[in-house]
Amino acid sequence: MSAPMEIEKKFLVSECPALDDFKAEVVRQGYITSGEDSVEVRVRQKGEGYYITVKSKGTLARSEYEAAIEPTQFETLWPATAGRRLEKTRYTGTLPDGAAVELDLFEGHLAGLQLVEVEFASVEEANAFKAPGWFGADVTEDKRYKNSALAVADQPPA
Amino acid sequence: MSAPMEIEKKFLVSECPALDDFKAEVVRQGYITSGEDSVEVRVRQKGEGYYITVKSKGTLARSEYEAAIEPTQFETLWPATAGRRLEKTRYTGTLPDGAAVELDLFEGHLAGLQLVEVEFASVEEANAFKAPGWFGADVTEDKRYKNSALAVADQPPA
Repeated sequence: MSAPMEIEKKFLVSECPALDDFKAEVVRQGYITSGEDSVEVRVRQKGEGYYITVKSKGTLARSEYEAAIEPTQFETLWPATAGRRLEKTRYTGTLPDGAAVELDLFEGHLAGLQLVEVEFASVEEANAFKAPGWFGADVTEDKRYKNSALAVADQPPA
Repeated sequence: MSAPMEIEKKFLVSECPALDDFKAEVVRQGYITSGEDSVEVRVRQKGEGYYITVKSKGTLARSEYEAAIEPTQFETLWPATAGRRLEKTRYTGTLPDGAAVELDLFEGHLAGLQLVEVEFASVEEANAFKAPGWFGADVTEDKRYKNSALAVADQPPA
């Protein structure tokens, strides 16, 4: 089964807004495999949900397999991700124009990093998007801000 | 946590004995990772039990993490092991001298292969072991008969 295509943009945050109306949840994810391996195996906590995900790295037909797991299963496998983890609090809310955003405040070795993602229903919508004043630089295409890269970085990208 | 050290020998089977007094169970295992990857991730069914196991490949400090999983979780991850699987029926029983043996009759691409393993309490016991007449060649040190090698072989080793 393939994951549905997501159209989203990712930005730095120049000034974090008040988060009173946002829903907060803990996100922890760690990679069991290394970046050079033929497959990516990730465990993830998102609020009350726990998952294991396998992504193949083929270029033509990438496959993805994901199973919900129990917290105890997560805790058993989590130590296998040492050195390849990221932990953050994700704030989910809606901009005045109706766009749903996810604001990630990172912890641990990435403390201080703040990223905001906006998801769009179409490419046209993404192209027409005007970022609010509190958004910083658009880092959608900057590979240093991919989760798998952040997990093994020494600190937030400069 | 490290797995306890196992002392066992593995043999081909020259003449399969009557298995009436043996317990039979299905064993299916598949590798999510490839042999060159930095870590080994395996899912396994053994009778009614299902497991995911992560083994690091470090030479000094090899770690192993294993979690029991549900059949539905196993079935979700099993497709990620295509081309890196082995399936067999394992017969467990006791030799006249009291040694516990595991006799594996392989299926699928390994159909026809039969292996028997004997586990020992000590190295002395292993060295003193006299194989019964129905045992074939000792393949304990033959890497072609490792599970991870058999899983990706085209057919049983010649």
